[in-house]
Amino acid sequence: MDSFIIHGNFVHSKNRFVLEEINDMNLVVLNNKIDGFYKTIPECFKNLEYYDYSDKIIIPGLSDLHVHAPQYQFRGLWMDMELLPWLDRHTFPEESKYKNLDYANKAYDIFVEDLKKSATTRVCAFATIHEEATLALMKKLEAAGLSGFVGKVNTDRNAPDILIEESDVSIKNTLSYIEKSKEFKNIKPIITPRFIPTCSDYLLKELGKISKEYKLPVQSHLSENLSEIEWVKELVPQSKSYADAYNIFGLWGINKTVMAHCVYSYESELELLQNKNVFVAHCPDSNTNLTSGVARVTALLDSGVNVGLGSDIAGGEDISILSAMKNAIKVSKLNKRLSHNNDGSLLFPEAFYLATKMGGQFFGNVGAFIKGYDADIVVLDDSSIKTTLKSELTLKERLEQYVYLKSSDCVFAKFVKGRKIED
Amino acid sequence: MDSFIIHGNFVHSKNRFVLEEINDMNLVVLNNKIDGFYKTIPECFKNLEYYDYSDKIIIPGLSDLHVHAPQYQFRGLWMDMELLPWLDRHTFPEESKYKNLDYANKAYDIFVEDLKKSATTRVCAFATIHEEATLALMKKLEAAGLSGFVGKVNTDRNAPDILIEESDVSIKNTLSYIEKSKEFKNIKPIITPRFIPTCSDYLLKELGKISKEYKLPVQSHLSENLSEIEWVKELVPQSKSYADAYNIFGLWGINKTVMAHCVYSYESELELLQNKNVFVAHCPDSNTNLTSGVARVTALLDSGVNVGLGSDIAGGEDISILSAMKNAIKVSKLNKRLSHNNDGSLLFPEAFYLATKMGGQFFGNVGAFIKGYDADIVVLDDSSIKTTLKSELTLKERLEQYVYLKSSDCVFAKFVKGRKIED
Repeated sequence: MDSFIIHGNFVHSKNRFVLEEINDMNLVVLNNKIDGFYKTIPECFKNLEYYDYSDKIIIPGLSDLHVHAPQYQFRGLWMDMELLPWLDRHTFPEESKYKNLDYANKAYDIFVEDLKKSATTRVCAFATIHEEATLALMKKLEAAGLSGFVGKVNTDRNAPDILIEESDVSIKNTLSYIEKSKEFKNIKPIITPRFIPTCSDYLLKELGKISKEYKLPVQSHLSENLSEIEWVKELVPQSKSYADAYNIFGLWGINKTVMAHCVYSYESELELLQNKNVFVAHCPDSNTNLTSGVARVTALLDSGVNVGLGSDIAGGEDISILSAMKNAIKVSKLNKRLSHNNDGSLLFPEAFYLATKMGGQFFGNVGAFIKGYDADIVVLDDSSIKTTLKSELTLKERLEQYVYLKSSDCVFAKFVKGRKIED
Repeated sequence: MDSFIIHGNFVHSKNRFVLEEINDMNLVVLNNKIDGFYKTIPECFKNLEYYDYSDKIIIPGLSDLHVHAPQYQFRGLWMDMELLPWLDRHTFPEESKYKNLDYANKAYDIFVEDLKKSATTRVCAFATIHEEATLALMKKLEAAGLSGFVGKVNTDRNAPDILIEESDVSIKNTLSYIEKSKEFKNIKPIITPRFIPTCSDYLLKELGKISKEYKLPVQSHLSENLSEIEWVKELVPQSKSYADAYNIFGLWGINKTVMAHCVYSYESELELLQNKNVFVAHCPDSNTNLTSGVARVTALLDSGVNVGLGSDIAGGEDISILSAMKNAIKVSKLNKRLSHNNDGSLLFPEAFYLATKMGGQFFGNVGAFIKGYDADIVVLDDSSIKTTLKSELTLKERLEQYVYLKSSDCVFAKFVKGRKIED
């Protein structure tokens, strides 16, 4: 159990619209949890380890609610395509390589190393269908000190042969990976049907049962692309919507559920998202790169839906959730100008809230400096930003400027569940 | 006069749609101009200085057709606003500081230092109304080895008192700055009415005359924001469009003319843009941040209009034109999905073409490795991008990945008009 003190200037979300600055304070972490802020360090804590980050910007750890680890090797490549051809041409061939554990080890080492240097402390990651490679990824993330969920992907139709499992093999391998992942403390399994088009009704129902029996969360994709939505209508004709297709197979709302994208969900799937308490993983970068559209985030938030951010590597090119914050704001502005739907644009405090306090709730009490919350803490160094205005800026302004200019930079320091991440 | 050889792998635009790779070649630069590629170095060039960039990506220098140098200090700040309130609240107060030459020197040192490290070799920059500070900026850019145009801004109405000149003072100071800038070799003056709202009819007419007499190019803003366009209609009721308002005062097409933004120009101002051979400075980042909209770049290109890219600091946050390339693609995709106007999205080779060969034409023969072109050359180092696929990627793919992932990084080396930029 780790206890320590961090001195410096802190920013976190009070609520959706308000960022709070806590300047020149000592944050006490006791047994991996946030204890509180102290102007002077109480006598009883005087012997704790002390980190001085006085000139830095200290924020809560960020949550990435949607990332495809095996797509990391081709991030930023082949961006002139939409979803379905892009899956066939690039994604499936790359993911099929993870059958080879040597390849998986090399590739996942690169992914985990970069994730470690980012501001992300929690992830909801897709691996591939391959059990061994999935467990290898979990092991590497655990060793790096990160926390979250990794899903062995399930696929029994509509993919290249090499990426299809027979339904019962898929189920058996899922049970096996759940069993073997008991050795990990901070990285847990999550039920991961790739998406409706690649999973038979039978497979989806069985996965729903496993989620219930093992009390496991569920992650998948929802209403990302117009052609995809049409396809789902054909595949599950008895469903009222794409969302309903998951729901009727018993996958929604048994345990925590996160659905990536939801670009077209506001209009027809809102009630199910609300009733089943589903988290939306908003992936602005990916939705832009794959010409999917813009999820109506402010409208979803106004309706009480939980929204977090996802990098969606490699639809999105950048593993940084600080970049996702910036891009969430940008696409919301273009949605406002081009869509004529009366949605407001996302303000900076709102984007920060999604990345921290709201997205963090998928993982428990994560994403704010509140007593009892897990001590996920990120330290940003903005000294490389040269400006004559530096001394006049508030900490919130320095944070905004950092997010806009340095979102892809390595963080200065990071703590996950009260453990300092070492290089 | 500089002559040298660069060995390595080169990419440039053959045309709007085609990127050409030239691998493992020697590029000979003679007297600051591109001579050509040689597989083996001819005997007569054996004594030339030789740079080996074999493992790098070598591209032509990039052109920034629209940047506000005095706004650089607040890049990435206060982004939750639209154009007109943003000008009043942040831009005008900051620009008024440049009356103080000490402040201008400090601030412009930061701007020029960062620009020097970027992939930009040519700029079309706005300074402020202040003659001394404008000349100081020109001097610093010249000393840094960069090339392009810097405009002393003209404003005689609708701005804070401290940023308004009397019309005749504005004209006198413009003539004075033109005269004094004769000392610079690579940085030249450009006629720079801020935009119609801040320039009286009289001032605009006189600036038109000066452009004609001194054979100077013209830069300004056009049809960026819907409120701005409405305002121009009121201010110049005799004009048929915002574009026409510049044209009737004799500012368009006498010499080279570049207009920033043109978000709403395709519909009503296309003919004037075509007939007057105006360059559009497309500023995707700024048009997103200020919720202005998306310029219809592919439609403009299809109509034969010249388009280059602009960082538009500080509407845009990033001085990198590599970022502008990436963002031009991204916003074109959202325009395609959200606008229902049948515009295609911008492909990677097209965005590269705007940043190099097409935008470069504003400055002469700039932006490609063609015999007789100015030797503007940029060397990018992608070694920090770790991927298992590296050895399989073509140079074009490595370039795309660099642009998506490392656009804000410092370049490895840069040559402007055949002169190597030194740290």
